[in-house]
Amino acid sequence: MLRKIDHVGIAVGDLEAAIRLYTQLSGKAASHRSEVPEDGVEVAIFEVGESRVELLGATRPDSAISRFLTRRGPGLHHVAFGVEDVQDALDHYQSLGMRPIDPAPRPGAGGRLVAFLHPEAGDGVLIELCQPEPEGGAANGGSPAAAP
Amino acid sequence: MLRKIDHVGIAVGDLEAAIRLYTQLSGKAASHRSEVPEDGVEVAIFEVGESRVELLGATRPDSAISRFLTRRGPGLHHVAFGVEDVQDALDHYQSLGMRPIDPAPRPGAGGRLVAFLHPEAGDGVLIELCQPEPEGGAANGGSPAAAP
Repeated sequence: MLRKIDHVGIAVGDLEAAIRLYTQLSGKAASHRSEVPEDGVEVAIFEVGESRVELLGATRPDSAISRFLTRRGPGLHHVAFGVEDVQDALDHYQSLGMRPIDPAPRPGAGGRLVAFLHPEAGDGVLIELCQPEPEGGAANGGSPAAAP
Repeated sequence: MLRKIDHVGIAVGDLEAAIRLYTQLSGKAASHRSEVPEDGVEVAIFEVGESRVELLGATRPDSAISRFLTRRGPGLHHVAFGVEDVQDALDHYQSLGMRPIDPAPRPGAGGRLVAFLHPEAGDGVLIELCQPEPEGGAANGGSPAAAP
């Protein structure tokens, strides 16, 4: 069911400083950056093996990332798993009694389908499900705007 | 420098319940379990692509995982990156001014070398560095006993 760790999402207070830090840690530059204005989040991606590190900076104080930072400070925000089909995975997990945040797959940045499960489904861990990118699609893990 | 996400470490309050949950999520059983009595932690591993999910249960109230659970509740505890050589990585990161928790590589469960960086090196994220397993070695991400 889970094919890989697609990415870990990290909430950061200062995106530019975090990018400098993870450039040093990973030994290479961010592969790309994007902003999702409707979710109040700016994202920087670092490629690591078959996975990615996704740095999440808030661009306004009422965004989900701002609320997370206020509540918990910077740190690990969610883990995203690659699945073959997000709808199938949602159906399967719901049949097992797990509660989704997104009742149906929604397009993430880069054009691929994503959905978040409620943290109670992951024993306190916010879990995102990501479908493989469409051919030629850009790379991004979807926005965690719906995260509690 | 970072070759892959080796694993994500998740602190859980009830290891048996968490194992049931991640068995449902991953669609397969834990690949193995082990206990590190000196660190007061019991570990269950789920294989996901080239990475793993490492569930961490406390076996005594003064363990690092117990303290984490008291402070933050169950959830994402650390992310571990695979590196070719933990000593080289530590030397490199220290030359950049990053502070390790482990001043030198130490053997993790399974016989491979690991070291933790201080969370300030990861902008609030506790980062573990893991060397590839020796030929024929068992699989485990090392114990997070030294984590703050």
